[in-house]
Amino acid sequence: MPARAMNLIHDDRLFPANEALRDIARRLYNEIRELPLISPHGHTQAAWFAKNEAFPDPAKLLVQPDHYVFRMLYSQGISLDDLEIGVEKMKDPRRVWRIFAENYYLFRGTPTRMWLDYAFQELFGLEERLSAATADLYFDVISERLRTPEFRPRALYERFRLEVLATTDSPLDTLEDHKAVREGDWKVRGVTPRILPTFRPDPVVDPEYAGFQENVAKLGQMTGEDATTWDGYLRALRRTRERFKALGCTATDHGHPTARTADLERAEAARVFEKVMTKRADAADEELFRAQMLTEMARMSVEDGLVMQPHPGAFRNHNRQIYEQYGRDMGADIPMPTDYVTALRPLLDLFGNEKNYTLILFTLDETTYSRELAPLAGHYPCLRLGPPWWFHDSPEGMLRFREQVTETAGFYNTVGFNDDTRAFLSIPARHDVARRMDCVWLARLVAEHRLEEDEALEVARDLAYNLVRKAYKL
Amino acid sequence: MPARAMNLIHDDRLFPANEALRDIARRLYNEIRELPLISPHGHTQAAWFAKNEAFPDPAKLLVQPDHYVFRMLYSQGISLDDLEIGVEKMKDPRRVWRIFAENYYLFRGTPTRMWLDYAFQELFGLEERLSAATADLYFDVISERLRTPEFRPRALYERFRLEVLATTDSPLDTLEDHKAVREGDWKVRGVTPRILPTFRPDPVVDPEYAGFQENVAKLGQMTGEDATTWDGYLRALRRTRERFKALGCTATDHGHPTARTADLERAEAARVFEKVMTKRADAADEELFRAQMLTEMARMSVEDGLVMQPHPGAFRNHNRQIYEQYGRDMGADIPMPTDYVTALRPLLDLFGNEKNYTLILFTLDETTYSRELAPLAGHYPCLRLGPPWWFHDSPEGMLRFREQVTETAGFYNTVGFNDDTRAFLSIPARHDVARRMDCVWLARLVAEHRLEEDEALEVARDLAYNLVRKAYKL
Amino acid sequence: MPARAMNLIHDDRLFPANEALRDIARRLYNEIRELPLISPHGHTQAAWFAKNEAFPDPAKLLVQPDHYVFRMLYSQGISLDDLEIGVEKMKDPRRVWRIFAENYYLFRGTPTRMWLDYAFQELFGLEERLSAATADLYFDVISERLRTPEFRPRALYERFRLEVLATTDSPLDTLEDHKAVREGDWKVRGVTPRILPTFRPDPVVDPEYAGFQENVAKLGQMTGEDATTWDGYLRALRRTRERFKALGCTATDHGHPTARTADLERAEAARVFEKVMTKRADAADEELFRAQMLTEMARMSVEDGLVMQPHPGAFRNHNRQIYEQYGRDMGADIPMPTDYVTALRPLLDLFGNEKNYTLILFTLDETTYSRELAPLAGHYPCLRLGPPWWFHDSPEGMLRFREQVTETAGFYNTVGFNDDTRAFLSIPARHDVARRMDCVWLARLVAEHRLEEDEALEVARDLAYNLVRKAYKL
Repeated sequence: MPARAMNLIHDDRLFPANEALRDIARRLYNEIRELPLISPHGHTQAAWFAKNEAFPDPAKLLVQPDHYVFRMLYSQGISLDDLEIGVEKMKDPRRVWRIFAENYYLFRGTPTRMWLDYAFQELFGLEERLSAATADLYFDVISERLRTPEFRPRALYERFRLEVLATTDSPLDTLEDHKAVREGDWKVRGVTPRILPTFRPDPVVDPEYAGFQENVAKLGQMTGEDATTWDGYLRALRRTRERFKALGCTATDHGHPTARTADLERAEAARVFEKVMTKRADAADEELFRAQMLTEMARMSVEDGLVMQPHPGAFRNHNRQIYEQYGRDMGADIPMPTDYVTALRPLLDLFGNEKNYTLILFTLDETTYSRELAPLAGHYPCLRLGPPWWFHDSPEGMLRFREQVTETAGFYNTVGFNDDTRAFLSIPARHDVARRMDCVWLARLVAEHRLEEDEALEVARDLAYNLVRKAYKL
Repeated sequence: MPARAMNLIHDDRLFPANEALRDIARRLYNEIRELPLISPHGHTQAAWFAKNEAFPDPAKLLVQPDHYVFRMLYSQGISLDDLEIGVEKMKDPRRVWRIFAENYYLFRGTPTRMWLDYAFQELFGLEERLSAATADLYFDVISERLRTPEFRPRALYERFRLEVLATTDSPLDTLEDHKAVREGDWKVRGVTPRILPTFRPDPVVDPEYAGFQENVAKLGQMTGEDATTWDGYLRALRRTRERFKALGCTATDHGHPTARTADLERAEAARVFEKVMTKRADAADEELFRAQMLTEMARMSVEDGLVMQPHPGAFRNHNRQIYEQYGRDMGADIPMPTDYVTALRPLLDLFGNEKNYTLILFTLDETTYSRELAPLAGHYPCLRLGPPWWFHDSPEGMLRFREQVTETAGFYNTVGFNDDTRAFLSIPARHDVARRMDCVWLARLVAEHRLEEDEALEVARDLAYNLVRKAYKL
Repeated sequence: MPARAMNLIHDDRLFPANEALRDIARRLYNEIRELPLISPHGHTQAAWFAKNEAFPDPAKLLVQPDHYVFRMLYSQGISLDDLEIGVEKMKDPRRVWRIFAENYYLFRGTPTRMWLDYAFQELFGLEERLSAATADLYFDVISERLRTPEFRPRALYERFRLEVLATTDSPLDTLEDHKAVREGDWKVRGVTPRILPTFRPDPVVDPEYAGFQENVAKLGQMTGEDATTWDGYLRALRRTRERFKALGCTATDHGHPTARTADLERAEAARVFEKVMTKRADAADEELFRAQMLTEMARMSVEDGLVMQPHPGAFRNHNRQIYEQYGRDMGADIPMPTDYVTALRPLLDLFGNEKNYTLILFTLDETTYSRELAPLAGHYPCLRLGPPWWFHDSPEGMLRFREQVTETAGFYNTVGFNDDTRAFLSIPARHDVARRMDCVWLARLVAEHRLEEDEALEVARDLAYNLVRKAYKL
C-alpha cells in the first residue's frame, strides 16, 4: 500500500528514508496510532471544559498564548506589540495572523511547524502551505470552524481520544472548574472525563515567586491552618494536597531553578521558613528553603502517594526588559547546566528506596541523560525518567533521549510521553510525534537484530499507553 | 551469501539496515572477527585460572556478581535480598534465576541483553528467548554445561582465543594466583597464558578507602619500608610496582573520584601525607593527597614504564542505605561531571611531553569527548584515549565516542577495546560488540567516500588488535 | 547520471549511503555548489593579495602554518623541531614533507584529510594517495605548480570564486595591505575585491595578552588620544574602529577565555582599568576587565553597527613547555566548559533588544548548543549563532550543530559558514564540506516529510550565501 501523500503532512512523516527501517516503523506505529491519549502533565485549563465556550480567533488561539511561536518571531526582530502579546482583547487579530503567516518560513525544521501543520490539516482541513499568500484563507477557514460545535473544547477532547488530561494548578486555586467537570453531566462513552488537577506549589514554596508571603497567608486562610508557623504551614500543604487528591489529582509538579534538596533538622527548617516569611532571606536562604521543600514534598508523597515531578533547570525571565514590560512566560526562559547527583542525594538518602514513592525526573540539560539520569533511574527504585522536555520535545530530542538513556535505564524506567502544553490543539500532533519517534527507535533495534519485532511492539504499546498509566497511578 | 538467522543472536546484528553500509561493515568485520582477544583491563580473578575449578550455578555466575544485572532489577523494585546479592552460599539459586528470567524483558535495548544472549547461544547452545517460561530450561542446561570440562576457566580462556587477560589488583595482594599460573604447566599453543596483574593502588593512595591507614601500614610490612614516612611510603610503592612488573604487569589503574592532579613541593606533600595518615585530614586534604598521588604515580611511570590509566568521575556508593547494608559495588555508583583540562595540567606540565610515558584517559562524562579529551589526546604525545567506559560501553556509546573523537584525535590516539568486566563469560560478546561497532563506523566513512576500504580494513585491524598491544606495551 | 569516481575525492563524498537521501542531497547541492564563497571570518593575510608573491614550498605552505596538521603529528611523538615549526627559513622542507607523508594515515577520519585531499586533487591534480611512496611526487608537483602564475594569491582568489574575504587584525595594525588592495588596480570582474579587515582588539583589551600595557600606549599614539585614562582609552578604541570601518570592516572578533560580560559603574570601570594598566590586577580583576570590555565593545557596536563575534572557551597555550619554547598557537589550545546564560546577561540586559545590534555567538562547548545557545538565539533579537567552530568544523560537528540547534532556533538564527582558517588553500574545501553537510541535513528533513524540497532548496541557498551576507552586513 503506497503511503498517502498530502500537502501539509505525510503518512510516513518522521520515518527513516531506509525502506527496511521505514517498514518496521510503520508496522509498529500502525498498531499504536489509535491508542487513547493520556496527558498526565500539561497546561490546559479546566475552565475550557467546564464552560465549553468556543475558542476565539486564530491569532488569539494559536499565536498569542504559544511562546514557542512568538519567541521565534521575536528573535527575528518582530515586536511583541505588533503581535499583541499580552493584550486581553486583541485589536487586529487578522493583522497579527498575517505577520505570523509571512514569517512561517522561520519555523522550518522546528517541531512547532510539525505541530501546526498537523492541526491545520487534520483539524481544519487546510492543505496549502501557510504563507503571506494564504494568510487570509487560513484566518477565514479557521475562524469559521472555531464557531462550529465540533470545535468546542469538549468535542475536541472526545475527537482527540483523550482518556486523561491533567492540568497544572496552584494550591490557591479553588479548583471550581475541576469540580464542575467532575460533578457535571458531560460524559464520554458513558463516563465522566478525567480532567485532573496537578498540585504545583511553586507560589507557596518558592520565596522568589511574586507575592510569596501573601500566597502563604492565603493558603493558611483556605485551609484554616496557621500557616505562619512551620508546622502550620506544612499542615496547610498536607490539607491542600488532600483537597487536590479528592478531585482525582495523582501528581505534584515543582518548577524549581535547580534540583537541589536538603534534609534540615526541624528547628533549622523552621528558622529558614521564618526568614523567608519575614523577607530577611538572601538568595542562599531562598535556595535552601526550596531545597528543603522538595524534601518535605517527598515526605508527603511517601504518605499520600502523589507522584512527584520536579522540572528544574530554567533561568526564568532571562530578558529583563521583556519581563519588566510584559511579565512572566514571555519565551525568555533559558536552560542552565543542572546537577542531579549531589542535588538529589539528601532526598534520596531519606526516600530513595521507598516502595510507595515515585519521583519522575525531567531535565533541560541533555548532558545529564547518559551521565546522571539514566544511571540514577537504572538503580533507585523510586526514580523514573520523564520524556524529553520543552526545548527538547522534538524528533531529534526524542531520539537523543532514547539513544542515551536506554542503554543504562532500559525502557521500563521511563514513563511515556508528556505533551506539557498550553496549546490544546497541538496535543494530538505532539503525541503523534512521540509515538512515531519511539517506533523509529524501536525499528532500528529490530533492524539491527537487537530486539525481535514482537518485543518491539510490546514496548511500543507500553511507551504509548501502559507506562504512563502505571507511573502516574492513573 | 544470506545471513544466518538464529533465535537469539543474528549474524548481522548491530549492522545498519542500509544494504550498502551493511555490506561494507560485514566485509570489514569478517576480516577481524577471528583475531585473538586482548583484554588489557578488567576484573576477572587470577584464582579462576590458577585453580581451574568449575563455575557454580547460573544465578551465582550470571546474576549475583553482575551489577549491570541486579541494578536494573533493583531499579524496578526487586529487593537485593530476593536476589541473594552478597550471599556467600546462595540458598535458592533456582528461585533467583526465575526472578531474573521473569524480568528479562527489562533489559530490552541494553547491552546486557546482547552480552547475555550471546553467551546463552554461543556458549550454552540456547536458542529460545529467556523468560518465565524458559527459566528452568535455562537453569538446567547452563548448570549441566558448567559441570563439564569444556566450561572450566582454562578451557574457556582457550575457547575465547584470549591472548592476554589483565586483572586488577591491590598492592596488598600477594599475587600468588598470578605466580601459580606463571609457574604452572598450563600452556596454550605451547606458551604460558598471559594472565597479568594490573597495579591498582586505591587502597593505599585514597584516604577515603576503608582501612587506608592500616593498608599503608601493611604495605610497609610487605615491602620492608617504613611507609609511615613520605619517602618510605613512596619507596614502598616503587617496590610494589616492581613486584607487579616482575609478574608481567604493564599498567596501573586509578579509581579516583576526579582527574585532579597536583605538583606540591616535597615538604608540602609530606605534610599532607602526615595529615591523611593521622586522620586529621578534611575532604580537601584528601582530594589534594589523591591529586598529588596521581602525579607521583606518573613520576614512577616515567621511570618504570607502566602505562597509567585513571578512571575518574564516579560518585561511589551513592545509595547510603544500600551501602550501609550491603557494602561497595552494589550498582549505586553514579557518574558526575568531570574536568580534565585544568585537573590534569599539573601532571602534564611535568610529564606531558615525555616520550616514555603513556596516560590513557577514561571518562564517564561523555561531554568531555569532543570538548576536552580529543583535543588533549590530539596534542599531548603521552595521552591516549581509552574506549567508552562502563555505562557507555554500548553500541550507541561506542558510536558517540567515534563520532566525537575521531575528527580531532583520529584513530591512532585511541587504544582499542577494554572489556573491563568481572563477567568472564561476557568477554567474547563485549569484544564482538566493539569490533562490530568500529566496523559500522568505518563502513560509514567508506560509504561516504571519506576513506578507502583498504584503509578502513587496516584501521579495523589496528582497533581490534594492534593498537591495544602497542598502547599497553604487550 | 553515475557519480564520477576519482582517486582522492568523490563527487558524492559526505552524502549518505541511502539512495533516497543521497539523491535529494545531491540535487540540493548541485543547485548551490557554484554559488560564490563568502568568508566573513578567517586568518588569511591581506599582504598575500597586496604583494601577490608566489607561495613557498609544500612544507612551508601546508605543514608549518597549520596547527591541525602538526598537532596531530606531535601527538604521535614527532617533534616540532623535526617539523621545523616556527623556523622562518626552513632548512629541509622536503624532509619535513616526507615525515608528514609517512604519517598521513594518522588523519584518517579527520576533516584535515578531506581538506587536504580536496586541495591535492582539485588544485594540484594529484590522484594517488599521499604516503611515504608518493611523498616526493607530491613535493615536486606542488612545488612546480606554486611557481606558476595560476597559483599566485590573486589568481587563487578568483579561482575560488571568493566574493568577500575577511582577515582578522589587531588595532595596532596599520592595515597598509588592506589599503593597498583597496586602492590598487587589481579588479575581479571589474570591481575591487573585498578583502576586509576585522577588528580584533585582544592585544589592547586582554590584560593577559603579551605586552598589553605597551599595546595600549601604542594605541594611544596611533589615535592621538590619551589612552592611559579610561575615557581616552575608550575614545582611542572608537577611533580605531572607525579606521577599520573606513576600510570596509563590518565586524569585530573577541578571543576571550570566557563569555563573561559586566556592567560596571563608570567609576568602577575606570578603577579596574587603572589596575590592569598599572599591573596591580589579579586574575579576577583581569577577567572582570575583559568582561567589562565586551560590554563596552557592544556599546560601540550599537553605535557604529559593527557585528560582534565573541569566540570564547579556549584554554590557550595549555602545554607550558611548548609555549615556553615555541610560543603561541602551537596546537595546544584546549576547549573548556563555557557558560553563556549567566555570562552574557549583563550585556543582554543593556543591548539584548537593540535593533541595530548583532552578536554572533560561537562555542567550543557543544553541550551549549541545545541547552543555552539555541534557546538564547531563539529569543533575543540581537543574537545569531555562528557555525561549528575549530575542533567541531567537521562533518559530524556540523550535523550535531544542526540537529541540536534547529529545533529551537530554526535556520534563520544561524549565519551560514565561516572557514576561520589560516590555510588559504583549504578555503574551497571547507566551504564545500559545509555546503554538503547542510544539504545532508536538509535531505533528511525532506525525506522524512518535514520540509518540501522547494523549501529545502531555499534554505540551502540561504545557508550557503544569503544569511552570511545579511548577518555580517556585507
